[in-house]
Amino acid sequence: MLPEGLKFASRFDNVTGSAIREIFKVLAKPNMISFAGGNPSVDALPDEVCARLAKQVLENDGKRILQYGATEGYPPFLESLIQYLNKTYAFPADKSTVLPTTGSTAGMELVCKAMLNPGDTVLVESPTFLGNMQTLKLYQANLVPIASDDEGVIPEEVEKAAKEHHPKLFYVIPNFQNPSGRTLSAERRKAIAQLAKKYGFLVLEDDPYRDLRYEGQHLPTIKEFDEDGYVVYMGSFSKIVSPGLRVGYLVAQQDILRKCAIGKQGTDLHTPNLNQAIVDQFLRQDLLAPHIQSILPGYQQKMEAMLRELESFPEGTRYTRPEGGLFLFVEMPEGFNATELFNEAVEQGVAYVPGTFFYPDGGHHNTLRLNFSNSTMEQIHVGMTKLKELFAKNMK
Amino acid sequence: MLPEGLKFASRFDNVTGSAIREIFKVLAKPNMISFAGGNPSVDALPDEVCARLAKQVLENDGKRILQYGATEGYPPFLESLIQYLNKTYAFPADKSTVLPTTGSTAGMELVCKAMLNPGDTVLVESPTFLGNMQTLKLYQANLVPIASDDEGVIPEEVEKAAKEHHPKLFYVIPNFQNPSGRTLSAERRKAIAQLAKKYGFLVLEDDPYRDLRYEGQHLPTIKEFDEDGYVVYMGSFSKIVSPGLRVGYLVAQQDILRKCAIGKQGTDLHTPNLNQAIVDQFLRQDLLAPHIQSILPGYQQKMEAMLRELESFPEGTRYTRPEGGLFLFVEMPEGFNATELFNEAVEQGVAYVPGTFFYPDGGHHNTLRLNFSNSTMEQIHVGMTKLKELFAKNMK
Repeated sequence: MLPEGLKFASRFDNVTGSAIREIFKVLAKPNMISFAGGNPSVDALPDEVCARLAKQVLENDGKRILQYGATEGYPPFLESLIQYLNKTYAFPADKSTVLPTTGSTAGMELVCKAMLNPGDTVLVESPTFLGNMQTLKLYQANLVPIASDDEGVIPEEVEKAAKEHHPKLFYVIPNFQNPSGRTLSAERRKAIAQLAKKYGFLVLEDDPYRDLRYEGQHLPTIKEFDEDGYVVYMGSFSKIVSPGLRVGYLVAQQDILRKCAIGKQGTDLHTPNLNQAIVDQFLRQDLLAPHIQSILPGYQQKMEAMLRELESFPEGTRYTRPEGGLFLFVEMPEGFNATELFNEAVEQGVAYVPGTFFYPDGGHHNTLRLNFSNSTMEQIHVGMTKLKELFAKNMK
Repeated sequence: MLPEGLKFASRFDNVTGSAIREIFKVLAKPNMISFAGGNPSVDALPDEVCARLAKQVLENDGKRILQYGATEGYPPFLESLIQYLNKTYAFPADKSTVLPTTGSTAGMELVCKAMLNPGDTVLVESPTFLGNMQTLKLYQANLVPIASDDEGVIPEEVEKAAKEHHPKLFYVIPNFQNPSGRTLSAERRKAIAQLAKKYGFLVLEDDPYRDLRYEGQHLPTIKEFDEDGYVVYMGSFSKIVSPGLRVGYLVAQQDILRKCAIGKQGTDLHTPNLNQAIVDQFLRQDLLAPHIQSILPGYQQKMEAMLRELESFPEGTRYTRPEGGLFLFVEMPEGFNATELFNEAVEQGVAYVPGTFFYPDGGHHNTLRLNFSNSTMEQIHVGMTKLKELFAKNMK
C-alpha cells in the first residue's frame, strides 16, 4: 500500500509490467528449458576476452575511465564506433550524429523523451517487441498497429495510417524481427524512408540482430535510404558482444541527437566508461568480426534444429523460417490457446512467451515466440518434443 | 534545423542545457584550473584495485556478468549492498526496498518517472543541484524554492510551502549540500520526515557526499526518522569509489520501489552487471572503508587551503565552512556579478560555476560555487590568487 496522500504518476495507469514478469519468474525454476527470453547463448559470451580487456583498459586509462565521462561518450569508443559505422553503413556517422547509450533500451527511452508528448501517435509493427512497447506506453503514446506479411511491415498500411493518424514516430525492427523473425525487404525499406519524409514522421529503426545473419546477404538499413534526417538508427552490442555490458548507440540527425544527449544528462549522465572502453577494444583490436563469425554456426545449428522439430508439430502449425536472429514465431490453428497452455507447459519444464504480449491490441492467443539461442541442442530436442505432445493433446 | 514536419516534445520547452554546457566546454582548454565540476580527485580513483577486481569478477562469474541481468540488481551486489546498508543505517533495507541504479542520476530519473505528472509541484532547496533541477524540469515540475540558513533548509518554510502548494515531492541534499556545502541539522531532518507524513509528500533524500566528512559526527538520515515510507533515500558510490562506474541505489517503500523497477525496465533494463560486481567486491573484501579513510585527509587539506585563500578575498566576501563534501559556496557583496565575470576568469585560466545556475528562480549573480577536490594544492593557490585579484578589481 502506497503511504497515504501519495499517488503514482498517471503514465503508469496502463502499465503494470506484471504478466510478462510472472513469465520470467518461472524461468528461475531448476531444470526449466526456456525458449522464452532473448538471451545470447552462454557459449557466445566472451568472458575470457572481456576479463583481459577490462584489466587492460583500466591499467592503461583507468583514471579517465573511473572519472566522470562525457555524456557524448568515452572519446576512444566514440572514435572507433564512428569508424566502424562508416565502414559498415552508407549513412553518415560523425560526432554530431552518434551517441553511445546504456544498451539500446536507453536509446529508445531517449528518443521517446526527445519526441513524444502524451497522446502522440506511434505506429508499431503488429506484433512487435514488448519491452519497447512498454516504453512507448510509459510515454503515453497512442499505439497504432501496422500489419505485416512475409516481407515485413506493409508500406501501404504505413501510408494509410500516416494519413489517418498523423504519427510522430514509426517504431520498426527491420532484421529478423522480434518476435516474428521476419526481415523487411529492401524495396519496403526504401518506401518507408520516403513515407517518413512525405508525412513528416520519425522512423525509429531498431536493429540489434542484423549481424546474426545465417544465410543471405545484408540488406541496406532504412537509414541508408534517408537523406533528410527522418530515420534514427538504434544499434546494440548486446547480441554480438554482451547484453550485460549495456552498450548500444543512436545515429540520428544532429538536432535530434543533441536533444537526446540533453535528455541523457538526466537519465544516467553518461554510459559507464569501462563498458564503452571494453567494446572499444573489441573494435580497435579487430575482435568483433571474428567473434561474430565464431558464434554464427552454433546459432544456425540451433535454429535449424528447432525448425526441424516444428515440422512434426500438429497439422495446421505455421511458423517463420528466418534468415537470422534469435526467434521463431509460431502460429497454431485458430482456437488453440498458447496463453492458457503456458502454465501447463511450465509444469512440464518448458517455457515460451505467449504471442499475445507482442500485439499492441492483445488477442492472437494461438501464437507464441520461441527462442533457440539460449538452449543446448539437447534442450531443444527435449523441450520441443514436450511442447509437441502438449500441443497435440490440446488441438481443438 | 529539425527536418520539416518533426517537432520535439514539449518537455524540452524550458530546458536547453546550454548555459552550463558552455561552462563545461571551456574546462577542456589546456592548463585551465577548474574549480567548476564536482569531480573526485584523480588520486582518489582506485584504478589499480579496479583493474584487479574487474579481471577477478569476470574470471569468476563472467558468464553471468556478461549475460542479461535482473532489473532488480546483480544478486551478489544486491546482497552485499543490503548488508552494508543494514550495518550503516537504521532504516530497513531488504530486497523489496533496495534497487541498484546507474548512478544516482538514474535513481532521480526513476523516482520522477514513478511520481510526477506535468505541473506537479516539487519543493527544492534554494540553491540546489542544477543537474537534478534539470531532470525535474524535464518532468515539467513546478519548482518551488525553499529558503535555507546555516542549518540547512528551514522546516517552517517547508511547511508553509506544503500548505500553499500541495507538493508531490521535496528534493533535498542533507549533507554538505551541493552547492552550498551546508548540512541539515538532526532536528530539522526529523521535522522534515514528520512534515512529509503530515502533508502527504515524498521526500527525495539525495546523499552522495555523506562519507566525505572531514570533521564532526555522522547525523541520522531523514529516512531514519521515516516510519511510513515517505522518504526515498538515494545513495551513490560515485564520490567514494568512482563516478565513471555509474553505480548508485534507491532505498524506498516497497510499492514505490516496485514502480521504479518497472520504470527501469524501460530506461536501461538493468545497471551493467560488471559495474555492480566491482562495487560488490569493494564491499565484500572490506575495501570501501579503508579507501574512504585514505582519501579524506587529502580532501580536507584541499578544503582548508581553499578556505585560507578565501580569508584574504575582498571585504564583504562570505562563504560556507562545510564539515565535508566537495564544494564551497561564496557570496560576494550585492552588486558584484560573478556570472558576468566568468568569461574573464576563464581567460585568466580559472573556472568556477556562477551561483545563479543553482537557483530555481535565477538571480543571485553575486554567488559562485567552488570545487576543491579536483585541483592540486598548487592549483588551488594559483587559481584562488587569480580569482582574488580579479574579484578585488571588480568590487563596486
